[in-house]
Amino acid sequence: MSVRTIDVRERVMEKNNELALQVRRRLEEHRVCAFNLVSSPGSGKTLLLERTLERLGDRIEMAVITGDVQTRNDAERLARYTDKLVHAVVTGGACHLDARQILTALDAIDLSRTDLVFIENVGNLICPAGWDLGEEAKVVLFSVTEGEDKPVKYPSMFQRAEYAVLNKIDLLPHLDFDVDQAIACAHEVNPNLRFFLTSALTGAGLDEWCTFIEAHVRDAVVA
Amino acid sequence: MSVRTIDVRERVMEKNNELALQVRRRLEEHRVCAFNLVSSPGSGKTLLLERTLERLGDRIEMAVITGDVQTRNDAERLARYTDKLVHAVVTGGACHLDARQILTALDAIDLSRTDLVFIENVGNLICPAGWDLGEEAKVVLFSVTEGEDKPVKYPSMFQRAEYAVLNKIDLLPHLDFDVDQAIACAHEVNPNLRFFLTSALTGAGLDEWCTFIEAHVRDAVVA
Repeated sequence: MSVRTIDVRERVMEKNNELALQVRRRLEEHRVCAFNLVSSPGSGKTLLLERTLERLGDRIEMAVITGDVQTRNDAERLARYTDKLVHAVVTGGACHLDARQILTALDAIDLSRTDLVFIENVGNLICPAGWDLGEEAKVVLFSVTEGEDKPVKYPSMFQRAEYAVLNKIDLLPHLDFDVDQAIACAHEVNPNLRFFLTSALTGAGLDEWCTFIEAHVRDAVVA
Repeated sequence: MSVRTIDVRERVMEKNNELALQVRRRLEEHRVCAFNLVSSPGSGKTLLLERTLERLGDRIEMAVITGDVQTRNDAERLARYTDKLVHAVVTGGACHLDARQILTALDAIDLSRTDLVFIENVGNLICPAGWDLGEEAKVVLFSVTEGEDKPVKYPSMFQRAEYAVLNKIDLLPHLDFDVDQAIACAHEVNPNLRFFLTSALTGAGLDEWCTFIEAHVRDAVVA
């Protein structure tokens, strides 16, 4: 029973990886970057994206694909900040986005006029780690209210991400949270993780984050 | 492929439900209550349990089973507050606890000298909803930093819970969070959900929570 489950799961993952390759090829063909934002529920992915769209919307062409178990709340919030497409995937119970959903979503996006696709994954620090969506990189968010040890408790996600955003730093004065310890925990599982410290609410750290995003997109277009 | 996956999944769930029934029978035989605590990562399950053990440890006999993807951090924190057994299940990647793990954990607990078992599930607001552990009730925690709309975005967990703990209320003065709206969101998906508003950090709301726990355990023993 257990062997057969693993067998079926492996074939599902194989199929997903094939579709992720198709996503990756289509994005590369059009020189479009794609970041897959992953986090716990309520870490601030949507607000970070709102602020990013607001600040960079005039300078780079961004599309967004949101994934939620239920509701289109995030997509509706984001649509206020952009006239570009915000594509909502409602997974109806599933705990992660998969590459097929991204491939379908890309059909609705004019990639020839897009520089960057943000994928806002389902709020779950475990399952989305294993699903390649054809993204260029995973960006893992966590907030200062969640405790310093999250990276060692959920190592897979932090190992598979290239970038980490430690969000809600405006709350630090009201918390017993050690930023250095949190970063050390993350670097323990992934020494290459590049960190951004932000408050999407107050705007702290967003200059550095947006400068990085813009430079990254420019480099991709030139490359 | 998809049909076969569902088929295997159904059989896995069937097996889990059988084992959950065995857990439930063993608990009933010894008149032991069991609460399954579920939440996002970092909502404060462990601190709430620390405070509960501290306040009620002299009056009721409590054992704890913790589930984590990696680390025994939570179990070690809790062991400081009780001389009773704290049993750590490290799932090694799995996104939820299952009934087999609870059945195994119960083997190590002297149920004849136990009133209440707390199960601290893996931090994940999606997957643990579908896994019956043989508990008497699920208690869903969420914190005021996570946003009011979590219950409608993750409805399954809130539908399957009997009790909800809205935690970290000490941070309310520093947040734009509407408690009434959060409760309304939760009651939209589950009108019967009984709420506790707590700050495990400052102790706010813990009198009501602990009074409920103690009364519930006493009723079970008398019944």
